[in-house]
Amino acid sequence: MQRRNAFYAQSGGVTAVINASACGVIETARRHGDRIGRLFAGRNGILGALTEDLIDTSRETPAAIRALRHTPGGAFGSARFKLKKLEDDRAQYDRLIEVFRAHDIGWFFYNGGGDSADTCLKVSQLSAATGYPVTCVHVPKTMDNDLPLTDCSPGFGSVAKYLAVSVREAGFDVASMAATSTRVFVLEAMGRHAGWTVAAMGLAAERADDAPHVLLFPEIALDETAFLAAVEATVQRIGHCVVGVSEGLRRADGTFVADSGVRDAFGHAQLGGVAPVIASLVKARLGHKVHWAVADYLQRSARHVASRTDVRQAWAVGQAAVQFALAGHNAVMPTIVRVSDRPYRWEIGMAPLDQVANVEKKMPRDWIRDDGFHITPACRTYLSPLIQGEDTPPYVNGLPHYVRLRNRPVEKRLATPFVP
Amino acid sequence: MQRRNAFYAQSGGVTAVINASACGVIETARRHGDRIGRLFAGRNGILGALTEDLIDTSRETPAAIRALRHTPGGAFGSARFKLKKLEDDRAQYDRLIEVFRAHDIGWFFYNGGGDSADTCLKVSQLSAATGYPVTCVHVPKTMDNDLPLTDCSPGFGSVAKYLAVSVREAGFDVASMAATSTRVFVLEAMGRHAGWTVAAMGLAAERADDAPHVLLFPEIALDETAFLAAVEATVQRIGHCVVGVSEGLRRADGTFVADSGVRDAFGHAQLGGVAPVIASLVKARLGHKVHWAVADYLQRSARHVASRTDVRQAWAVGQAAVQFALAGHNAVMPTIVRVSDRPYRWEIGMAPLDQVANVEKKMPRDWIRDDGFHITPACRTYLSPLIQGEDTPPYVNGLPHYVRLRNRPVEKRLATPFVP
Repeated sequence: MQRRNAFYAQSGGVTAVINASACGVIETARRHGDRIGRLFAGRNGILGALTEDLIDTSRETPAAIRALRHTPGGAFGSARFKLKKLEDDRAQYDRLIEVFRAHDIGWFFYNGGGDSADTCLKVSQLSAATGYPVTCVHVPKTMDNDLPLTDCSPGFGSVAKYLAVSVREAGFDVASMAATSTRVFVLEAMGRHAGWTVAAMGLAAERADDAPHVLLFPEIALDETAFLAAVEATVQRIGHCVVGVSEGLRRADGTFVADSGVRDAFGHAQLGGVAPVIASLVKARLGHKVHWAVADYLQRSARHVASRTDVRQAWAVGQAAVQFALAGHNAVMPTIVRVSDRPYRWEIGMAPLDQVANVEKKMPRDWIRDDGFHITPACRTYLSPLIQGEDTPPYVNGLPHYVRLRNRPVEKRLATPFVP
Repeated sequence: MQRRNAFYAQSGGVTAVINASACGVIETARRHGDRIGRLFAGRNGILGALTEDLIDTSRETPAAIRALRHTPGGAFGSARFKLKKLEDDRAQYDRLIEVFRAHDIGWFFYNGGGDSADTCLKVSQLSAATGYPVTCVHVPKTMDNDLPLTDCSPGFGSVAKYLAVSVREAGFDVASMAATSTRVFVLEAMGRHAGWTVAAMGLAAERADDAPHVLLFPEIALDETAFLAAVEATVQRIGHCVVGVSEGLRRADGTFVADSGVRDAFGHAQLGGVAPVIASLVKARLGHKVHWAVADYLQRSARHVASRTDVRQAWAVGQAAVQFALAGHNAVMPTIVRVSDRPYRWEIGMAPLDQVANVEKKMPRDWIRDDGFHITPACRTYLSPLIQGEDTPPYVNGLPHYVRLRNRPVEKRLATPFVP
């Protein structure tokens, strides 16, 4: 069989484990040198393909590639760049094929969420239409856990663990201070459209009155009166209250609570942050001293407290992507299939990309408690396995030792530049 | 020698390791049952003594006390409550002595920062004046690292580690996204008066162009022009910039940058948060996409990533406090004495409380780089040992397993209530 080069790119917001998927792809490709030649990575994701800015991963040592497994961020650069519709900008797709052809790329592994699944599908379709053969496999990644057909998305389990750990720890802090100081603490989670991340905080509440006590989901419009009553009831009962809130929380009229029209001291629009808004509401209406935290990127880059389950799954979907491609599957995505809850067992499945692209997986309503302020036992059963196990990175000088790759460029072969 | 009971209380903002000091005090006291009877803890700190709300720690199992070593927050409740000056409210001090007398308390261990050192000193003075003998030893704790006479303060090393780890991880994230998305990331550190915490972020910058790239200290007034130039130069050089900022950052006129007079959508004063203000400034003036994080309590409760050095020192000052008291020392505080930098060696010293109380240790100016935007090698030499080593708590169900004590009350012996 013909030996051809491969192309791998990272897409969208990065996670603590997207590099573990890269590691799975590269290590597996290296074991199949008879079929896969050099593996190129796109510098800054798909932009690297469009601009012919390719990274030669064969210049990296096995140890460096192995270290990707414990390094957060996107080692080759990611991109928030969605290709236009095929009919609107055929030139972008033609350029991809042109670059692939110039570098004899016959395998395309695209690591991202819903948008990149769509791009991956279109490239496979264009490949068929143009007669230039490229096997296209999507590698799932999203901290939002909103990809369909897979039981969970690599990247989510580690965010979930970070948030559950953090809200538990902050809960111990606030409980100590409540008699004379802070009574209400608000922690904000990323995730604009679905409440998976804020639901994950709920895992920390294993016993009665454990933090968090009140959760605010993007799926449930903020009812100020009911929310304040829930907070006050908790403060009356145990002296304090820990609130988890999604950045995507909306008012009844559909507007984002974080979009508060605030101006700061410099006269500029204040950027986001629903936690300070909720904290201010509590302080103004209930009079309690409040504190709030916005973890932002910390939550999706916290490789130091990653879920071992998540790391393994991230690596496994990278490995499976290469195996699927070698087995002749095209326009597919490896999925996580849950075999059982207790003990948690999972295996790799396969989904066709035309069923993945542009579909968002929502939280089932019955995984949110009737009053809208916490998760149900069914939700806990689903979420709990995803945060199991630790996978501590090596520490040097008291800090996690993360790898920076050489990222040597591949010599360009095309005379024409391309402005995406 | 007479066998008398002991009293232990936690004061001020809690840390990831103040319970490790409690563990050191209690475990050591238990080994000296011939001199120390029961050890009572104040429920919510010194308030527990004033209101005769004492906790009987002898009702806790050895395993529970051992688990304090890895549990964040304040296990008995802390308090932001400073006793008035002796001459202004003698009644508070008289009440303390009354409660101590009622419960035959002859040993007083007070675990906190500068304010509690002052209280501890005054109780010892009153003890001498009234003829009721109490041996008073202060146990140092502050995440701010601002206690004098000790090389460092237990609690600080773990915050330092958390911040350095977090800013490194966020740096890997932002570096991946900068080509098409976020270029500037701002992380805020607690610590209103001294820049120790924001300096600790600087430890993550071990190699050229490592994050963080620009630090904003409370000791250096914000020079907007110079700051924006530093950020832009970094973005031009490497494509992105990570900024660490102290919540105590001030303008040239001395006002806090965080005190921005902002109103939110509910019409309430927006609470704190210097990071969003700095992020807005960057976005407005330089036009870069920004993200920001405020870790708030997460940083001082993050026991999951505590510094082993810090945990050991916290336990050791607890142990030493009891040993000092048994040896007849009064109105003293155990200190951390640095014996050498490399290899880092430390031992326990002793400081008289009249030299500790109400003195704040500032960052030396020559530990901040001349341009005001980073730490110097001397600062790194000082800080680096404090974050060395990991001390991972036990995990159950994917989450750190922290102890909640029984906290059984001691039967009251006084007929009179007391309103502090």
